[in-house]
Amino acid sequence: MTVHLDGMASARIADDHHNHATESTHGVSEAHHSNKTGKDTRHRNRVKEEITNAGHESKFHVTPVSEEEHELNNRVPSRPTPELKFDEDEGDTLSNHNSITALLSSKFRDIQKRLKQYGIESPRFRKRLVSRWESLNYDVCENVLYLKDQEKYKSKKWVTLRWLSKWLVMFFIGIGTALLAAAIHFVVEKLAHFKFDLIKHYFDDCAKNNCLYQPALMWMGINLVITVAGAALVTFLQPMAAGSGIPYIKSYLNGVKIPGLLTFRAFVAKTVGVVLSILGGLACGKEGPMAHSGSIIAAGLGRGRINFCNGKTVSFYSAFRNDHEIRDFVAGGAASGVSSAFGAPIGGTLFSLEEAASFWNQDLTWRVFFSSMVACFATNFLISAINGDPTKLTDPGLIRFNAFKFDLKFDLIEIPVFIFMAVIGGLMGALFVVMNYKLTVFRKRYLNKNWIKIIEAGLVAVVSAAVAFGLMVGINECTDKAPFDSHAVTASVYCTDKKYNGLSTLFLTTPEGCLKALLHDPFESHGAVSLVAFVLIFFVLGVWTYGLSVSSGVFIPSLAIGAAWGRLVGMGVAHLMPENPNLQLDVGKFALIGAACQLGGILRTTISLTVIIVECTDDISFGLPIMIVLMISKWVGDFITTGLYDMNVEVMGIPTLPFECPPLCDDLRASDVMSAPLATFKTKERVENIYRMLKEETFCGFPVIEDDPMAPGKGKLKGLILRSQLLVLLQKKIFCPEGQVPPRNITIKDFRDFYPVYLKVSEIELSDEEKSYVMDLKPYYNPSPYTVEQKFSLPRVFNLFRGLGLRHLIVTDEKNVPVGIVTRKDLAKFRVGSKRGLVKIEQLKIQDI
Amino acid sequence: MTVHLDGMASARIADDHHNHATESTHGVSEAHHSNKTGKDTRHRNRVKEEITNAGHESKFHVTPVSEEEHELNNRVPSRPTPELKFDEDEGDTLSNHNSITALLSSKFRDIQKRLKQYGIESPRFRKRLVSRWESLNYDVCENVLYLKDQEKYKSKKWVTLRWLSKWLVMFFIGIGTALLAAAIHFVVEKLAHFKFDLIKHYFDDCAKNNCLYQPALMWMGINLVITVAGAALVTFLQPMAAGSGIPYIKSYLNGVKIPGLLTFRAFVAKTVGVVLSILGGLACGKEGPMAHSGSIIAAGLGRGRINFCNGKTVSFYSAFRNDHEIRDFVAGGAASGVSSAFGAPIGGTLFSLEEAASFWNQDLTWRVFFSSMVACFATNFLISAINGDPTKLTDPGLIRFNAFKFDLKFDLIEIPVFIFMAVIGGLMGALFVVMNYKLTVFRKRYLNKNWIKIIEAGLVAVVSAAVAFGLMVGINECTDKAPFDSHAVTASVYCTDKKYNGLSTLFLTTPEGCLKALLHDPFESHGAVSLVAFVLIFFVLGVWTYGLSVSSGVFIPSLAIGAAWGRLVGMGVAHLMPENPNLQLDVGKFALIGAACQLGGILRTTISLTVIIVECTDDISFGLPIMIVLMISKWVGDFITTGLYDMNVEVMGIPTLPFECPPLCDDLRASDVMSAPLATFKTKERVENIYRMLKEETFCGFPVIEDDPMAPGKGKLKGLILRSQLLVLLQKKIFCPEGQVPPRNITIKDFRDFYPVYLKVSEIELSDEEKSYVMDLKPYYNPSPYTVEQKFSLPRVFNLFRGLGLRHLIVTDEKNVPVGIVTRKDLAKFRVGSKRGLVKIEQLKIQDI
Repeated sequence: MTVHLDGMASARIADDHHNHATESTHGVSEAHHSNKTGKDTRHRNRVKEEITNAGHESKFHVTPVSEEEHELNNRVPSRPTPELKFDEDEGDTLSNHNSITALLSSKFRDIQKRLKQYGIESPRFRKRLVSRWESLNYDVCENVLYLKDQEKYKSKKWVTLRWLSKWLVMFFIGIGTALLAAAIHFVVEKLAHFKFDLIKHYFDDCAKNNCLYQPALMWMGINLVITVAGAALVTFLQPMAAGSGIPYIKSYLNGVKIPGLLTFRAFVAKTVGVVLSILGGLACGKEGPMAHSGSIIAAGLGRGRINFCNGKTVSFYSAFRNDHEIRDFVAGGAASGVSSAFGAPIGGTLFSLEEAASFWNQDLTWRVFFSSMVACFATNFLISAINGDPTKLTDPGLIRFNAFKFDLKFDLIEIPVFIFMAVIGGLMGALFVVMNYKLTVFRKRYLNKNWIKIIEAGLVAVVSAAVAFGLMVGINECTDKAPFDSHAVTASVYCTDKKYNGLSTLFLTTPEGCLKALLHDPFESHGAVSLVAFVLIFFVLGVWTYGLSVSSGVFIPSLAIGAAWGRLVGMGVAHLMPENPNLQLDVGKFALIGAACQLGGILRTTISLTVIIVECTDDISFGLPIMIVLMISKWVGDFITTGLYDMNVEVMGIPTLPFECPPLCDDLRASDVMSAPLATFKTKERVENIYRMLKEETFCGFPVIEDDPMAPGKGKLKGLILRSQLLVLLQKKIFCPEGQVPPRNITIKDFRDFYPVYLKVSEIELSDEEKSYVMDLKPYYNPSPYTVEQKFSLPRVFNLFRGLGLRHLIVTDEKNVPVGIVTRKDLAKFRVGSKRGLVKIEQLKIQDI
Repeated sequence: MTVHLDGMASARIADDHHNHATESTHGVSEAHHSNKTGKDTRHRNRVKEEITNAGHESKFHVTPVSEEEHELNNRVPSRPTPELKFDEDEGDTLSNHNSITALLSSKFRDIQKRLKQYGIESPRFRKRLVSRWESLNYDVCENVLYLKDQEKYKSKKWVTLRWLSKWLVMFFIGIGTALLAAAIHFVVEKLAHFKFDLIKHYFDDCAKNNCLYQPALMWMGINLVITVAGAALVTFLQPMAAGSGIPYIKSYLNGVKIPGLLTFRAFVAKTVGVVLSILGGLACGKEGPMAHSGSIIAAGLGRGRINFCNGKTVSFYSAFRNDHEIRDFVAGGAASGVSSAFGAPIGGTLFSLEEAASFWNQDLTWRVFFSSMVACFATNFLISAINGDPTKLTDPGLIRFNAFKFDLKFDLIEIPVFIFMAVIGGLMGALFVVMNYKLTVFRKRYLNKNWIKIIEAGLVAVVSAAVAFGLMVGINECTDKAPFDSHAVTASVYCTDKKYNGLSTLFLTTPEGCLKALLHDPFESHGAVSLVAFVLIFFVLGVWTYGLSVSSGVFIPSLAIGAAWGRLVGMGVAHLMPENPNLQLDVGKFALIGAACQLGGILRTTISLTVIIVECTDDISFGLPIMIVLMISKWVGDFITTGLYDMNVEVMGIPTLPFECPPLCDDLRASDVMSAPLATFKTKERVENIYRMLKEETFCGFPVIEDDPMAPGKGKLKGLILRSQLLVLLQKKIFCPEGQVPPRNITIKDFRDFYPVYLKVSEIELSDEEKSYVMDLKPYYNPSPYTVEQKFSLPRVFNLFRGLGLRHLIVTDEKNVPVGIVTRKDLAKFRVGSKRGLVKIEQLKIQDI
């Protein structure tokens, strides 16, 4: 199959090269760039191919340009959209499954299509990249300043200090994360116990005195007030703190700059917010947010500076203030967070390294591992201390699945049951994602005002309480089995003495407590009707809660849903084989497998998540069935839709790069994907030109070329300079009249001082005289940027970009003259999907919003 | 500190670019390369700098060129070796430790120096790279043939088939490895039990009848015969099968081509050899070789071809016959091997990916994980079946540390004891490595004849038996505690009824059985004197055995040594605190920690080894102390010398690339490290030139340049062609008289058929007429090789090379004219060592041998 994509060759697309995040206030469109190279500048966002050809979806179609986009582009002459040619033959249909699967998938497609009816615009949120997301600068700019700065680190003292301080920072990241985890644990456990104890007493009293409206109202009232406070905190302080933060952290580690993600405001909103969310009775956990909190601690310690909410700043050291170092520390922070949350130091390390895979190296791995080990150990120590004896060391994380009373052994004959459960988990997980996606789109479109967000959060809290109350009163299954957690709050409601309402141990506790109860409570603690109701309710509440403007994690509700239906399966198996009394003991095992299946179906576990769950289970011989069900639930889920986090990333339009170049792209060349024409500077450039270019254009990086009088603007490539560098140079006035010796009173520290909040061009004032001066860029640009030739294939460009973690890749012609630039979005826009068993490649739009 | 390395700029050094492995028979020296670029061709192997400056070792010194090397280079005018300048200031001493450490290290240095006295040439084996080791071609050659071949894979059928077959091959790799593991386990256990039972009976009888010379002679005789057979097998069939194979596998995954490593001969020698080694009573295990065996299975299944020892070949499919695919499969095979051996699927996966880190991607990770999971599960099933009930699933690997009778909990106060043990482990591990290194050097120099190697192996086997016999008779500590393994062979020797000789459960068993006994036997099974003697003897035997020309692993002896002295420590602690009876139960815990410490000290665990041990222990809450001791023992050991595997790699001169560029190399440019002058071809080249070049030069890759009549030999770069490709083209006679249309009757399959055993130029016969023909290289060369400019710094070149897994990196000038080539050895020759607490950078020599 040959796909002619020549129409794209010069399509100008807003991308990382542009700096909309900081510059969008100027309302500058990048579409009217002067036609320096003489190529046609065509409409953006216009070309969209779907290489699917599966029956009714088999054609390349060109998305019509909307009115709004015409508006943006009306300064260039409108040209007819080029028709894309393609050969339609058997090669076009790409399925990596067999024909039965294809049949099934076509059935499912019809159902999904009908589901989609309510909003034809919904792909708008998934089939695009948002231009404001930029790349991190992982590549080191080896200019003269840097080399001079490096000189001093070559002394014994500095090598020692630098080496030591990296380890020390990692140590404190681990300690800090553990302190936070223990503090959150302490506060939540104490206050939640107090709250549920209060409700329980009213409950038990009122069941006898017929005043059940009292606990109901009280419960709903408490939830409402606390949740509204949490939602307001997140919404107004830092909206980035909403949700678990894991999609953002994954994107950050993948190399995307997420403004506001690693700030003190986000930290406050995240940590206080998650306490309020759980106390507010939402179906969410405190584990997911730990990865985000740990990352913020890491970034703060790495930068050696805290910007408080009131604008004050405390600065300690600046040596690590660049994207490269901070990202390494954040990898440690995220690992520590996961490690604290789940007591999974290996899993946490893998979690960090999996996304930052381009940059795996043994030294960093050890440091990350060290910090995550410290975090695990310190959490263990602190929580053991809270529980009474710090030397017991029995709680390495906030949540653990261990403490099974029996040996976690499995028989080979149980494997089919587990596989069946994995399929269920995959299907239910996909349903969760699809429902949550619809809800997210709905929220994006209609619930985008701050006060509506807060009201929605309050509503969910009230409904959560009301439904729990209704179930407890309505389904009056009583039990006399002692719950696993001796401190559990048990309400009798209508039950007789010595018995209690089975659902009360699930609802009158935090979601973690609920999960523990489902895993470890004795066989007869929970009736089948209760469990069915619980699954349905918690599933809906989980879908509804995830995506609210509150700080919340999705791990625990997913696990709880899975544990509940896993328990049901276990009860069913025990019922089918009454001759085997062991099966009654094993109900916790089925609950555990169910939890793993459900989580795998929702999140689509990667290898790191598998390790996290295995570590959490604390029993490696039981790891094998867990791995099997996780893989199967992932496959089943992937067959229908992407995972929850990936869906989040897609909806936000973050240009994360996959691990490998999409298939079928061998025919594409660097010249097809690059952005052209280019904005370039000469090595000695007039200040006026620089100032105007920065003002008018939104590029983040500019190739610097030789001043060739024979071919102006077509000189050989000399280097690459970043917008952020130019802004600092302008601000520090490093220029002089032509012919004079240029000033050199600037060091690398001056550049670091502006990290990571860069200057804006609007903040710089230049007199007319200054504008006539000349700036010598030679000491500042990166003299050896990575380049490729135009004829390089997309897979090779991709490997280079991904393997080195680049931000800009300059495309040159044979004579080493730059002709274009490739950025993250140029590569991320080719997305491969294996949805419904079909390999599909789409070229995403890039939008400004 | 400024290091002027300008003397190196044009030093011609034999490297990967050269093909000594296949071409050395021609006796062609690469040193007389025609001076095309007009640069001086200087002596190789002459420049050696040590950037250490620590007291007496502070000077750069230039290694004198030996007579032999003069001989090689006498065709070019000899020039005086350039004196290297350097500024001696405080910056030269580079220590990443504090001053106390430095003091200690200087003391140690003196001791080590004296130890070194016996052979001043010993650095010869560590301070060099051997030129015959080449790189794998991980980079895809995107020539016309490849693109044409790819076309067909774009159809639905092929995408499905290709995807499915990769998973299927991985599945069978797992199954195959498990079958092998189970078979070896079965054979070894049965035969070893038979052997030791026999000896025991003679022992017990003769102790009464005073004929102890009988069991002694018998024991020694059995050992001698079996070991000599094993050594002969390895030595004559495939010497690559000696040792554990893990250093080779690690190097292979790092990207080095190891001829003979993945052949059927190696498989036979490895698997049969390891059985014979263990039955021969050597102090070695069968776990290490599993990684190698698994890799061979993977390579065989990936290639779809078996070359039997008798020269016969069976071929099934050829689609995966390139270094890229085979390496992915081998990653799965190595992971499966480790997973089978230790029941550690996660650790096995990490083991593979750690070395192949440049190429981590999620898809491959999943496949590797899958195969290692299958291997673990199948091994579990098969061994359980051997043990009686296949559904029990209690033995996921060949060796496990679990099955502790008590809960593996640790108190915080035990941590200091563990740390103390870790320091001991690190020191003893370093001693092991140093002793083994001395022995290796001795062997390389004096024991390099095949028959001597076999005699040495036989000698070790006899001594092993004799010493064991002597100890059992000499130290007559009796015990009546039932051993952990109910099937253990217990000899009474001089003990009374119902008692048995404590050492007999350690010596009358396989090393695995010995390890199990040390970990799990009751407190009073082994006396202190026995244990001390055991540690000493086993340590010496372990050092002596590792490096023999037999198939053997070092895991188990390391662990057994550690477990023995760990048990001693445990007994000491219990003795010091007699009021705590729990400590007697905990002796196994101390044995486990000791085992981990010793292994960490010898092998210097990476993150993967840590995970392997944690998985093997089957208890994650005890993983934390294990991680701590592993890290500390690594640090202590690294302070003295490198790990055992790294030492092996160094001695063999394999150019593995580290994870990061060595520090302090910012000043070096691509033009400093590259090999120049270059041998290039024009796009249309005369057959005669090609044939002569291949015959006279040993380069593996040749840049193809534009035929620029204005500047002959200085045309712009068009691509890169490999020696192996040219040989196939010559063999297939893809050339024609000038002016005619060149023949195109060659497909990518023709190239694959010669994989991985490439043609030799001596096998190709060309007539004089044919030599006057012209070959059109355009369809065959790689049209977009990665290039860098001359001014690129070494760290950037390194990152590019490592990040993309390159074999050749072409260095061009500003006009895109190739001026040199960088290969693996050009980068690997800069080795950073932190030996004895000092950061040190050496430029290694590259030798032919």
